[in-house]
Amino acid sequence: MASFDPVAGVEPVGGIERVSAGSEPIVQIKSKDPEKSGRLFGLGVGPGDPELITVKALRRLRESAVIAYYAGPRKRGNALTSVESWLREDQQRLPLIYPVTGRPPPPPFDYEGTMRAFYDASAERVAAHLRAGRDVAALCEGDPLFYGSFMYLHDRLADRFETEVVPGVCSVVASASVLQTPLVYRDQTLSVMAGTLPEADLERMLAGAQAAAIMKLGSNFEKVRRVIMALGLGDRALYVERATMTNEQIRPLAEVDPAQVPYFSMILVPGEHWQGA
Amino acid sequence: MASFDPVAGVEPVGGIERVSAGSEPIVQIKSKDPEKSGRLFGLGVGPGDPELITVKALRRLRESAVIAYYAGPRKRGNALTSVESWLREDQQRLPLIYPVTGRPPPPPFDYEGTMRAFYDASAERVAAHLRAGRDVAALCEGDPLFYGSFMYLHDRLADRFETEVVPGVCSVVASASVLQTPLVYRDQTLSVMAGTLPEADLERMLAGAQAAAIMKLGSNFEKVRRVIMALGLGDRALYVERATMTNEQIRPLAEVDPAQVPYFSMILVPGEHWQGA
Repeated sequence: MASFDPVAGVEPVGGIERVSAGSEPIVQIKSKDPEKSGRLFGLGVGPGDPELITVKALRRLRESAVIAYYAGPRKRGNALTSVESWLREDQQRLPLIYPVTGRPPPPPFDYEGTMRAFYDASAERVAAHLRAGRDVAALCEGDPLFYGSFMYLHDRLADRFETEVVPGVCSVVASASVLQTPLVYRDQTLSVMAGTLPEADLERMLAGAQAAAIMKLGSNFEKVRRVIMALGLGDRALYVERATMTNEQIRPLAEVDPAQVPYFSMILVPGEHWQGA
Repeated sequence: MASFDPVAGVEPVGGIERVSAGSEPIVQIKSKDPEKSGRLFGLGVGPGDPELITVKALRRLRESAVIAYYAGPRKRGNALTSVESWLREDQQRLPLIYPVTGRPPPPPFDYEGTMRAFYDASAERVAAHLRAGRDVAALCEGDPLFYGSFMYLHDRLADRFETEVVPGVCSVVASASVLQTPLVYRDQTLSVMAGTLPEADLERMLAGAQAAAIMKLGSNFEKVRRVIMALGLGDRALYVERATMTNEQIRPLAEVDPAQVPYFSMILVPGEHWQGA
């Protein structure tokens, strides 16, 4: 175990003097609570590779007494996995365990109400630490405000406590990097959508897109692939699962087994190469 | 001047053992050139705040003998500005100066041909260093493959030299973080578009979007605002310029002076809050 603390040393060396360098945060801090309380950090930890965290998020991570993260029952959660190598033993873990994962049970099960109650309770567990004066880092795969579950904590806590959101590398650009494909040239439009959409909506969205990213595949993969093939986009579409994680897989779209597609998978339809360049 | 090298020390401490930790790159490296040559790194340096670079990009930056970056004539360029505090004096700067910036001259000026020749020449200047065995870090604001000028180097060099793309925090999520607004909930679709689009295209795209980001405003601002107002989106739209840079500005859309809007500005139309949470 090295005694070296990577964050203590993370500071610019040489070059010009910058108001923003060092410990001064540029990212806006919303503070509406006159009470002395801990700070809430919504940290984008990136797509999976521990080194794709930003220097700022890493610094906030190491400053926080409490590390909050979402995970499925009996799972560690991808966000915790990607930062665990940076954590110290004295940092308290606060797991927020989803009551439902995968396809929700049909009514009369109240899915929306169950999730609302879960997010309410999660926010109160985080708030208890903040009120006690402890900084809380809420971990988010990718970026906190881009399909991230941090949004539900933000909606409940940002007006009550000093809150800082540190943006992260989102899965869309991480997927483009591992696929080594330029995603959008010049004034092309990018449409980002969830594979959970109904087939007709997917077809309409994809037909009108110059470049597209389809997230949240999992059990929706077969439907998404059908739409892509019907639109004649099969040759342009690229598939990757768990981009930048240790078990990353890149496969031709035609060879993907729909029964094996994880939630953390993505199809990109890159924009046409700019002919001028 | 501290003698400390932040990248030499950037390594995970404690926690679980990971195949990916340390110096093993997860992000795919494409290697097609049997010759021994330098490596080309396309580095996303993030939206402007020097601390919003990733640990991986910072490590690659410090490993590179040559730092290539685009800039306007007699300008430093935002990409160089955001990393300059991390650079050493022994690292060679390779500025790639745009022949045209702002609105291109009308025909008979051959804008496309001029830009193609510029990107060709830029690629050859980079290639000369790679052939000489020097690693080259090509800097990109935000992410390299998301509207980034690195794409033109990638198109010309990735098949000839060992190339690694390190994704970065893109301006869309950085803007959401400084505006502290959740951008897309659950199944919502996000449309990312350039303000340079014709008014009718902007209107069609925005009318069909659940959430939207409009980039590249500059002289297109007035047109974009007109479309947003006509669609009744004025109350939801948020404006920020130079998000996370030292001169960042957040203003109400109605109060923005169209004559003062920089290229590095953004309008977000966040998705409606999920009612279930």
